[in-house]
Amino acid sequence: MKRPIDRDRLKNIRLLALDVDGVLTDGTIRLDGAGGESKVFSVQDGSALKRASAAGVEIVWISGRTSPAVAARAKELGVTAVYQGVEEKTGVLDKILAGKGLSWKQAAAVGDDLNDLAVMRKCGWSAAPSQAHPAVAAAADYVTGTPGGGGAVREVVDLILEARGRALS
Amino acid sequence: MKRPIDRDRLKNIRLLALDVDGVLTDGTIRLDGAGGESKVFSVQDGSALKRASAAGVEIVWISGRTSPAVAARAKELGVTAVYQGVEEKTGVLDKILAGKGLSWKQAAAVGDDLNDLAVMRKCGWSAAPSQAHPAVAAAADYVTGTPGGGGAVREVVDLILEARGRALS
Amino acid sequence: MKRPIDRDRLKNIRLLALDVDGVLTDGTIRLDGAGGESKVFSVQDGSALKRASAAGVEIVWISGRTSPAVAARAKELGVTAVYQGVEEKTGVLDKILAGKGLSWKQAAAVGDDLNDLAVMRKCGWSAAPSQAHPAVAAAADYVTGTPGGGGAVREVVDLILEARGRALS
Amino acid sequence: MKRPIDRDRLKNIRLLALDVDGVLTDGTIRLDGAGGESKVFSVQDGSALKRASAAGVEIVWISGRTSPAVAARAKELGVTAVYQGVEEKTGVLDKILAGKGLSWKQAAAVGDDLNDLAVMRKCGWSAAPSQAHPAVAAAADYVTGTPGGGGAVREVVDLILEARGRALS
Repeated sequence: MKRPIDRDRLKNIRLLALDVDGVLTDGTIRLDGAGGESKVFSVQDGSALKRASAAGVEIVWISGRTSPAVAARAKELGVTAVYQGVEEKTGVLDKILAGKGLSWKQAAAVGDDLNDLAVMRKCGWSAAPSQAHPAVAAAADYVTGTPGGGGAVREVVDLILEARGRALS
Repeated sequence: MKRPIDRDRLKNIRLLALDVDGVLTDGTIRLDGAGGESKVFSVQDGSALKRASAAGVEIVWISGRTSPAVAARAKELGVTAVYQGVEEKTGVLDKILAGKGLSWKQAAAVGDDLNDLAVMRKCGWSAAPSQAHPAVAAAADYVTGTPGGGGAVREVVDLILEARGRALS
Repeated sequence: MKRPIDRDRLKNIRLLALDVDGVLTDGTIRLDGAGGESKVFSVQDGSALKRASAAGVEIVWISGRTSPAVAARAKELGVTAVYQGVEEKTGVLDKILAGKGLSWKQAAAVGDDLNDLAVMRKCGWSAAPSQAHPAVAAAADYVTGTPGGGGAVREVVDLILEARGRALS
Repeated sequence: MKRPIDRDRLKNIRLLALDVDGVLTDGTIRLDGAGGESKVFSVQDGSALKRASAAGVEIVWISGRTSPAVAARAKELGVTAVYQGVEEKTGVLDKILAGKGLSWKQAAAVGDDLNDLAVMRKCGWSAAPSQAHPAVAAAADYVTGTPGGGGAVREVVDLILEARGRALS
């Protein structure tokens, strides 16, 4: 949170790779007795992702789990690059970047748990939400002031857009 | 939160325009696997809105999204002026005010995200909940101590009624 | 929270009257798109209410609203005195006390909103959860360190049982 | 939280006995109007339990209540030793330990309420989540910085694995 922000690296970001549980959601698994699962997303994160897309930043969601609620939220926001049930996130993102002619330095990643570390270390810039596993927070370039599902993605998007000189308002 | 409260401007307020997600709710999008969406409102906000109506303050809800849970909550509280799926909030509120013979100075607005800024700047007084986007909090006349869906509307209603010299209890 | 605890008055308590929304629950109204409403209770509150009953303290729930989830939770805990949809709480509690041969001094009340003030002022002792309306917190004999639905009732029960010299463990 | 950690005792732990409500969940009872109950678990707790199993630590869930959501979450995580509706937790764990040829010193327990105290006192090491009943927190060897359902189990697993010299990464 208090770490200096490396605007030079942020300026190069063309793709934002987001873990889902604990980054786009609050990291809870909410199960009802009938086997259904619900997810908690943030409205502010959603409007931030629309700003990012409008500014030309590609958005990718990569989750180790699979949930129809995630697909529903992605559809509502117009996010088409959604990869669920991914065990090896680095390989998936490597192919995505190659397909778009982008380098790892042009990608930023946000993750909260140990299985996100490999992707975060390869990306040009990385962030962790406030409730991330301590080892992930320690490895990230930035720790947001808000938790996953509570504004963490909004904070990251604002940093990327501000590094490009975009005014908010 | 620590900003001085301008009671002279608050005294003139006859209409309170509320954003829904992040103001009347906690700003979360809760999706289940079957496509349903639930919303989290505050009981204290509800009783405060009844006090405001009883004191002659008109209540208007304006949301950029659309959800049946919002309509259900408005019906329970007797709020009839509910506008959902509104892209351009300023135009909608302009017509509402004209229809009631009220000026923008007689309206107060509460919003939490960048798309609320235009309405908030035109109103006679504005507030943001504690979890608002920093640019919205900076532009607001007042930042509540509680978040949306957790008492923010209750705080605003109490300020308006107190400026009119209404005792609580 | 930091107020001195009047153990002499607490020792006389034979009946605990609890508001529901914001006291036994977290004060949220959770609505889904199909018209259903869910409530958030605390497990620790539940086990505390069983301890109170076992120690001979009568438990009464009085709510201004009506929800089947409240009836379901009361049934699970074995609480039979549940009054929902009550507009005038003082009158209801007056009859309950008379029927049991108890005085108002032998009753404690927990409430979080302005419509709880009348009952709280008549009871021998009163408490407000941490997120109560400021005017209710100011009027209460005690403000819990936890919010409604998050342990506030557990705190109150422990105070009553401790005043009687009951050890926990 | 600030108590010194006894790594010698932690090194011996071969079995981790977890209370469910308030330890694996956030301690809330969430009821809908149709009689359904949902539970809130943590994704980080889930991945930690997989790490513990992979390292040879046996995982046991013991709950005084019964909920199909608990069975569903256990199944997703591959936890097979799940005991629900248990009134006398000590006796159940005693049989489990005997069946595996383990002593109480080789077991750790995490609990949040008074009915967990007996098991916690018999185990070689015990922890309480941040929102535990004060008497339980006082009796525990360790109080986590996070609440139940919000990372408490993750913290405990990391302590056990670190005492064995396992690096996270």
